[in-house]
Amino acid sequence: MEENKEQSKSALKKAEKAAQMAAKKAEKAAKQATLPVVGGKKADDIIGITVKKNENFSQWYQEVVLKAELIEYYTEISGFFIMRPATMYIWNVIRKWFQEHIDELGVEETNFPMFLSQKSLEKEKEHVEGFAPELAWVTKAGDKDLEVPVAVRPTSEAVMYPYYAKWIRSHRDLPFRLNQWNSVVRWEAKQTTPFLRAREFMWQEGHTAHLTEQAAGEEQLLAVPVVRGRKTEAEKFAGGYYTTTVEGYIPSNGRGIQGATSHCLGQNFSKMFDITVEDPAEKGKHIHVWQNSWGLSTRVIGVMVMIHGDDKGLVLPPRIAKIQSILIPVGLTAKMSAEEKDAHMKKVDELLATLKKAGVRTDVDTREGYTPAWKFNDWELKGVPLRIEFGPKDAAKDVISYARRDTGEKGTIPIAELTTKVPELLETIQQDMYNKAEASFREHRLKIEKWEDVVPALDAKNVVLIPHCLVPDCEDKIKELTTGRSDEAAEGPESQKAPSMGMKSLCIPFEQPKGLVKGETKCLNPECSRLAEQWCMFGRSY
Amino acid sequence: MEENKEQSKSALKKAEKAAQMAAKKAEKAAKQATLPVVGGKKADDIIGITVKKNENFSQWYQEVVLKAELIEYYTEISGFFIMRPATMYIWNVIRKWFQEHIDELGVEETNFPMFLSQKSLEKEKEHVEGFAPELAWVTKAGDKDLEVPVAVRPTSEAVMYPYYAKWIRSHRDLPFRLNQWNSVVRWEAKQTTPFLRAREFMWQEGHTAHLTEQAAGEEQLLAVPVVRGRKTEAEKFAGGYYTTTVEGYIPSNGRGIQGATSHCLGQNFSKMFDITVEDPAEKGKHIHVWQNSWGLSTRVIGVMVMIHGDDKGLVLPPRIAKIQSILIPVGLTAKMSAEEKDAHMKKVDELLATLKKAGVRTDVDTREGYTPAWKFNDWELKGVPLRIEFGPKDAAKDVISYARRDTGEKGTIPIAELTTKVPELLETIQQDMYNKAEASFREHRLKIEKWEDVVPALDAKNVVLIPHCLVPDCEDKIKELTTGRSDEAAEGPESQKAPSMGMKSLCIPFEQPKGLVKGETKCLNPECSRLAEQWCMFGRSY
Repeated sequence: MEENKEQSKSALKKAEKAAQMAAKKAEKAAKQATLPVVGGKKADDIIGITVKKNENFSQWYQEVVLKAELIEYYTEISGFFIMRPATMYIWNVIRKWFQEHIDELGVEETNFPMFLSQKSLEKEKEHVEGFAPELAWVTKAGDKDLEVPVAVRPTSEAVMYPYYAKWIRSHRDLPFRLNQWNSVVRWEAKQTTPFLRAREFMWQEGHTAHLTEQAAGEEQLLAVPVVRGRKTEAEKFAGGYYTTTVEGYIPSNGRGIQGATSHCLGQNFSKMFDITVEDPAEKGKHIHVWQNSWGLSTRVIGVMVMIHGDDKGLVLPPRIAKIQSILIPVGLTAKMSAEEKDAHMKKVDELLATLKKAGVRTDVDTREGYTPAWKFNDWELKGVPLRIEFGPKDAAKDVISYARRDTGEKGTIPIAELTTKVPELLETIQQDMYNKAEASFREHRLKIEKWEDVVPALDAKNVVLIPHCLVPDCEDKIKELTTGRSDEAAEGPESQKAPSMGMKSLCIPFEQPKGLVKGETKCLNPECSRLAEQWCMFGRSY
Repeated sequence: MEENKEQSKSALKKAEKAAQMAAKKAEKAAKQATLPVVGGKKADDIIGITVKKNENFSQWYQEVVLKAELIEYYTEISGFFIMRPATMYIWNVIRKWFQEHIDELGVEETNFPMFLSQKSLEKEKEHVEGFAPELAWVTKAGDKDLEVPVAVRPTSEAVMYPYYAKWIRSHRDLPFRLNQWNSVVRWEAKQTTPFLRAREFMWQEGHTAHLTEQAAGEEQLLAVPVVRGRKTEAEKFAGGYYTTTVEGYIPSNGRGIQGATSHCLGQNFSKMFDITVEDPAEKGKHIHVWQNSWGLSTRVIGVMVMIHGDDKGLVLPPRIAKIQSILIPVGLTAKMSAEEKDAHMKKVDELLATLKKAGVRTDVDTREGYTPAWKFNDWELKGVPLRIEFGPKDAAKDVISYARRDTGEKGTIPIAELTTKVPELLETIQQDMYNKAEASFREHRLKIEKWEDVVPALDAKNVVLIPHCLVPDCEDKIKELTTGRSDEAAEGPESQKAPSMGMKSLCIPFEQPKGLVKGETKCLNPECSRLAEQWCMFGRSY
C-alpha cells in the first residue's frame, strides 16, 4: 500500500509541476503578445477557470462544462441541462461511430412513444420497483385530468416488449434487433451533475434477443480507458439477468464511473411480455426468447471532461473535437504597414485552406480587439487540441509554431509539411491522452488482500480489487464498513459534502487477477465468513 | 367548372383503368409463377390491402401504413404511433438531406430539455393560449406531487428564448441559429391519424434571428409537389408575425395538407423574452432581434404515402426507398437438377453484387416456401420501386426482367448494361412520380370567380384559389358557408364521417394568379362587402 500512496503522491507532484510549467508558459505567451490593442481584451480579462482541478474538483468540473460552453443550466426546472453545440458535435461523432457499428450488425432503427402506461409497467414487478421512485407522471392534458396517467419512459423495455411479442412470430425472425436514439427521464432525488446525473438524458437504447457483442468500446474514441466486467447481483439492471459494463476511473477523486452497459435480460422479460417462438427442434413447443439491452449515454462526455480537463479548462481528444486546430495570427505590430498586414493575412488564409484540405478541422481567430494571449486562453478553455500560431517571424522561416493543448509542448512545423505533420501530431495527441489516462487508471487499480488496506487505498484515490463472495448482503455490509472511516483530511468542498463515501462494487472484471484460490481464499469482508468467488472491483463511485 | 369536373372524372377513369391493368398484370404474374411449392405460400395467401384507394381512402391509408410496416399503433395509449424501421429509414434520409442544407447555412445543433415551466409559458400570452389545450402536464414524480407542474414541450420557443436573451450579447452574435431534432407532444382532442396528426411527433425545429431562407423544398426528395405561400392571419402560428408554408395536395380526396412551415416571429417573442442587442448604428440604444422558426416533421411521410400509394399498397420514390430494387429468382421448376438451380442462384448472387456495386440499394428474396407471385405482391405492398426478376429464360438471353412499381410497366435490361440502366430507370421513376403528382395538383387547383362554383369544385376534389379580403372573420364565415353543403353523394366511410367539411385557407401563394384588380375586385364571400386583397388558396384540409 505504501508504494501506492507514494505513487499517488508522485502523480500529484507531477501534476503540480505540469500546472506550474503551464502557468509559466501562459505568462510567457502573454508577454510575447506584441499587438498593442487600444481598449482591447487582454489575457487577464478572460474569465477562466477560477479553481484548480486538484483543489476543488466539483467546482472545477462545473466551471469547465459551463465556460467551455458544453452545457447551460436550465434554471427553469432543476436537474435539467441544455446541450450546447459543442456538446452536440461530440455526441454526433459518438452517435455516427456507434451507428456504423450497429448498422454492420444489422440492427435496425425504430422510434417508440415517450410515454408508457401503468399496465405495461406492472408486467415486470422487479423492473417497475427499480424505476418507480423516479417516474415522471403526466396526469393532465390541457385542463382535463387524464383517465389513466402515463409515465415518461425512464428506459423502454416496458414500452417496446409488448410489440416484440407481436412481431416475433418465428425463430426465423431471430435475431430481432432494434435500436433507438432518444432521451429518457429519471426524476432523480439526488443532486444532479451535468452529463453524469441529469433528470433527462440522451442515449441510445438497443433491444435485442441475440446480440452477444458487448456494447462497449467507446474508449478509443474518447481516449477513455475502461475495465470490462460484469455487475454484481446487487448492482445489476432492475429485472435483468446479469449486466456487463465498462467502468471508467476519474483520477482527480479516485472514483469509479460507469460508461456503457449491456444487460442480459435472460428470459425474465420475455416471460412477462410473452415473447415466444416455436422451438425449431420440437414442433408445437413454444420457447421464450433470450434478450439483451444496451445503452450508451451522454454521460460518457462528462467522464471525458473529468479525465482530460486541466486547470485551464477543457481538453478535447482530437477525434471528437469540432475544431481540431485553431489558427491565430500573431506579431502584427503597430509598426507594420497596412499592406504588410494584408499580405500576412493572405498567407494565413492560405494556411487555413491547406489545413482544411488536409482534412484537419481548423478555424481561424481573426477577432479584433483581443490580444493573441487572450485568444490563447480562450481556446485553451474550450479545449481545442492544437493551437497554431503564425507571425511574421514564422513567415520568414516558412514555418508555423504550435502548442499542444494536452501537454503544453511547443514546436514548429515547416509549411511544406503541414498536410502530413499536423494530422500525425493530432493522432499522437489522441494516443498520448489515452495512454496517460490508461496508465493512471492502471496505477490506481489496486489488488488488496488485507482489509485494513482498503480505506487508505480509497483515500489515496484508488479503486480496489478484492476477493469477494458476490453475495448482495455482503456488499451492503462492505459499503457500511467503509463509510465514514476516512483516514485522511478532507480535501475541498466536495469531500466536505461526502468526507468518506462508502465503496460499492463496480464490476467483476472479465480479466481476473491471479492469486484467488477457489475453496480456500476468504471473502475480504472481515464480517463475512464465506469463501471468495472472484476478484471484484470496488470503489467510491458516481 | 364543368371542364374541371370532367377533368376529375377523366382522372378517375384513368385511375380505374390503371388499377384494372395492374390487377390483370398481377393475375398474369401469378400464373407465370412456375415453382410448384408444396405447402408454400401462394399469391392469394397474402393479406394485402383490402379496400380501394378511391373507394375508402381513410381505411386504405390506415391499412397501407400498417401493412407496409411503416407504423404500428401504440395500443397502450391512444393517439401515439410506433415508427418502424421502414419509416426511420425515410426519416433519416430526409434528416440527412435537411441537415446538410442547414450545415451549409451555419446552423448549429442543440438539445434543450423536453419540459417547460409555467413561468416561461406565460411570458407569451398569445402563444400559450394557442397551445394550452394540448399541453401534457407532469404533476408527479414517483409518488410525490411536484411543487410546480411542468409541461412537455409542444414546440420550444418558450423553452429556448430565455437563453437566447442570455447568449445574444452583441449584434456580432447575429445571425444566431440553432436547430434541434426531437419529438414534441400535443395532446390532440381530435381524431389522430398516423403521421398527419399524432399526440407525439418527430421533427426538427430551427430557431433563428436572421435566417431568411424558406425552410421548404422537401418536395423533390419525396416527389411531393407543393404551393409556397403565406398563411393568413387566422391560420398563422400562435404568437407569430406571419407564417410561410408549403402546401401539398392529396388527389384521392382533394384535400390540402401542410408540409413544412416557417414562421416569422417578428419581434413578438424577443420583446417578451427580452432578447436585445445594442444598435450598431446608435451606441447605448438596444433593439429587439427579429426571429424566425421553422419546422419539418414526419407528417411529410404521411403526405408521401397518400399521394403515391395505390390499391396494392405503398409506392416509394426511389430516392428515399431503403430497398430500391428487389431481386427475385423465378422459373426454378421441379424439373431442374440441384446443380442447375445452384448455378442459377450463383448468377443471382452476381447480379446482386453488381447492382450493389453500382450504388443501387438492392436486396434479394430467397425465402423458401413462397411462390414468386406471393413475393411480387409482398414487395408491391411495401412499395419497393423496382422489381427485378431473373429466371433461366432471362439467363439464356443475358438479361433481367423488371417491373416498375409506380406504373406496372415491364421490360428487360441486358446484364451488361445493368450498372447504368438501373440507376437511370430509378431516376426516371423518381421524376415520373413527381411529374404525375405535380400535374394532378395543377389540374386540381382551380381559380374560381363565382361563389356558386366553390362547393362543386371542392366536391370534385379540388382546392380553390379565390379573391379574398384576408380578414379572419371572413375566413370563419367562409368555413361556415361551405360546411354541410355538399352537392354530391358521400363516397365512403370517411365522407360519411365528414360529408361536407368546410374549407379553410391554406395559403396566400407567393405566385399570384392574374385577374385580381386592387380596389375593384370584391372578396368572393357573398356575405363580405370588402374588396379583395389577394388570391387565397382554400380547401378542405388535414
